[in-house]
Amino acid sequence: MGSVAVIGVGMTRFGKFPDRSVEDLGREACWNAIQDAGINPREIQAAFCGHIYQGSVAGQRVLVELGLTGIPIYNIENACASSSSGMELGCLGILSGQWDVVLAFGAEKLYGKIQGAIAPDESDIEGDLGIVAPGFWAMRARRHMHQYGTTSEMLARVSVQNRRNACVNPYAQFRKPVTVEEVLASRLIADPLHLLDCCPIGDGAAAAILVSERVVRKYTARPIWVAGIIVSSGTVDSGTSDSTFEDLTDRAAKQAYQRAGIGPQDVDVAELHNCFTIAEIVRSESLGLVPRGEGGRWVAEGKTAIGGEIPINPSGGLIAKGHPVGATGIAQVAEIVWQLRGEAGERQVEGARVGLTHNRGGIVGGTEGAACCVTVLKR
Amino acid sequence: MGSVAVIGVGMTRFGKFPDRSVEDLGREACWNAIQDAGINPREIQAAFCGHIYQGSVAGQRVLVELGLTGIPIYNIENACASSSSGMELGCLGILSGQWDVVLAFGAEKLYGKIQGAIAPDESDIEGDLGIVAPGFWAMRARRHMHQYGTTSEMLARVSVQNRRNACVNPYAQFRKPVTVEEVLASRLIADPLHLLDCCPIGDGAAAAILVSERVVRKYTARPIWVAGIIVSSGTVDSGTSDSTFEDLTDRAAKQAYQRAGIGPQDVDVAELHNCFTIAEIVRSESLGLVPRGEGGRWVAEGKTAIGGEIPINPSGGLIAKGHPVGATGIAQVAEIVWQLRGEAGERQVEGARVGLTHNRGGIVGGTEGAACCVTVLKR
Repeated sequence: MGSVAVIGVGMTRFGKFPDRSVEDLGREACWNAIQDAGINPREIQAAFCGHIYQGSVAGQRVLVELGLTGIPIYNIENACASSSSGMELGCLGILSGQWDVVLAFGAEKLYGKIQGAIAPDESDIEGDLGIVAPGFWAMRARRHMHQYGTTSEMLARVSVQNRRNACVNPYAQFRKPVTVEEVLASRLIADPLHLLDCCPIGDGAAAAILVSERVVRKYTARPIWVAGIIVSSGTVDSGTSDSTFEDLTDRAAKQAYQRAGIGPQDVDVAELHNCFTIAEIVRSESLGLVPRGEGGRWVAEGKTAIGGEIPINPSGGLIAKGHPVGATGIAQVAEIVWQLRGEAGERQVEGARVGLTHNRGGIVGGTEGAACCVTVLKR
Repeated sequence: MGSVAVIGVGMTRFGKFPDRSVEDLGREACWNAIQDAGINPREIQAAFCGHIYQGSVAGQRVLVELGLTGIPIYNIENACASSSSGMELGCLGILSGQWDVVLAFGAEKLYGKIQGAIAPDESDIEGDLGIVAPGFWAMRARRHMHQYGTTSEMLARVSVQNRRNACVNPYAQFRKPVTVEEVLASRLIADPLHLLDCCPIGDGAAAAILVSERVVRKYTARPIWVAGIIVSSGTVDSGTSDSTFEDLTDRAAKQAYQRAGIGPQDVDVAELHNCFTIAEIVRSESLGLVPRGEGGRWVAEGKTAIGGEIPINPSGGLIAKGHPVGATGIAQVAEIVWQLRGEAGERQVEGARVGLTHNRGGIVGGTEGAACCVTVLKR
């Protein structure tokens, strides 16, 4: 799939914005992407809006404020993988020949709608029994510790590293460093996970402009290519398989690598769905970026830091950049585009040519359903 | 777009099902479509679920009950045009070469979630001021009466005709005939619209199996072709333009006719979004099926009845078949597929070769945003 390119990205800062509407946040991100691409908004032929909690026709509500009506607009929900799923559909629409220029964005406002952990869906029996996200990930952490000798300190180092990266990311929700001691001293949420092992809720938006190979040279001499983008789904891997590994992530990643004609060893920088510190470890392994069982040690040894063997979440990830759920997938794409262009400032991964995003969501407790999107981007 | 075919459709009866979950309803419709297509569920490569109110990853929750995991699943929200928007995206995915067999469905459970008219979104200022769906359509009815001499009796005849059609539709919510007198004597909702001028809320699901031209002959010798399918969006036309006509419907229809290489005069049967009796009149005109201003008279003269010049809503439409919002678009497709195959029983439009669906939704009050999907199907 070498024939779709990203020519512009943009986002809002992630954070707590009680005075801003989702329309306002979405508009800012879309406008930033439009300006970054240097296109006239009228050239956009279709738009995909990823969100979970913003009500009916949220995409239309955002875009009418930019004067964008009359084009096909789709609202895509796939839990935390909503905007990346929309981006994939935008790519397919371009590849079908239907459109040449597509806007894909995600916008979410969680503050004021949600308190603490996201509540289980009424049909989610395991969620009702207490297996909400922190409890679920706590069990995976315990298993990883048991199986591979991962420690609470290693988990804390994931948080420390993401916070450090976020300190130099102007879009990040938390731009204050934390220490291992502070993470371990923070409130226990679900043993062994402390408050600073968990991502926050947040408000924010992110957007990308996608174009066909046919028209890309009209807009830029240095496109970022979507070398592979795969959406898959499955049940959450709890209990039946080894909970230290994610089958769904593995499956989506293998397909994306194949599509892109690369292997995990070719990835120079990755943004992955680290909703909890343990999630970064499990997913870095499931994506094949880090040897199985070594995720905790690699973080402790600095191998996933900027400048390390495989820099992971240079943006600060969900833990520190923030996680306005529907916006997260395209915010990851924005970070990778900036990295591949060499525009990531103090958090730049030098010489990055191939980047990966991993965005994953779904009902937590077990058998209900989940979605995952893995994207390989190349300059 | 002659290269996507519908090889199977299925639905649940629409109605009030307090004891059934949306997963249960969705599964029944999908299974019916799978059986109708005569395929093995494992051949399905991607799925699109249209809904508004069913919570996160509803499509995954439905499909896990059919054992369908591991494929890409997308939840599409476009108000009342949700499942038709998903169907269009499924077609684009097939045309891109990504998939050969796609399941598109809609599932919605409104009873227990919604009472009376659907409440306005919190950002919908006009809705907050009282311009909810019945009020909005009442104003359009008044304007149509003023401009074209349409009468309350003509509106009532739309209801009478849809009820009559629904009496022979086993999937319909209301299978009891009504008279003009009964419609006019029913409770006034928003003058001049009475209760029986309005569609009900409901529970239900509908599904379709889409395949590429490449593989269609493997499954059937008599596919129904998607000759044109267009999603568009826009603001609801209230005030600035002639409210007796829908620009967005007109625009989507013209694109769909062009794609299919036909004109409105070539349509043999149509299912259109008649959420109110006046909506059937306005939309039959906006689609070009009935001369402008003549919609009321054509109904009164039986020209849109089964056996008339252009049979409209032989299924009973939203008014009598019911309107579980996310399911409506694909339920329209199911009806047209049955009509084109000659399988519509007592409500069969004889010799129908070209059918049209029109599915439309959005925030009612005015400037916020709407979605519309028009599909041309051919045998």
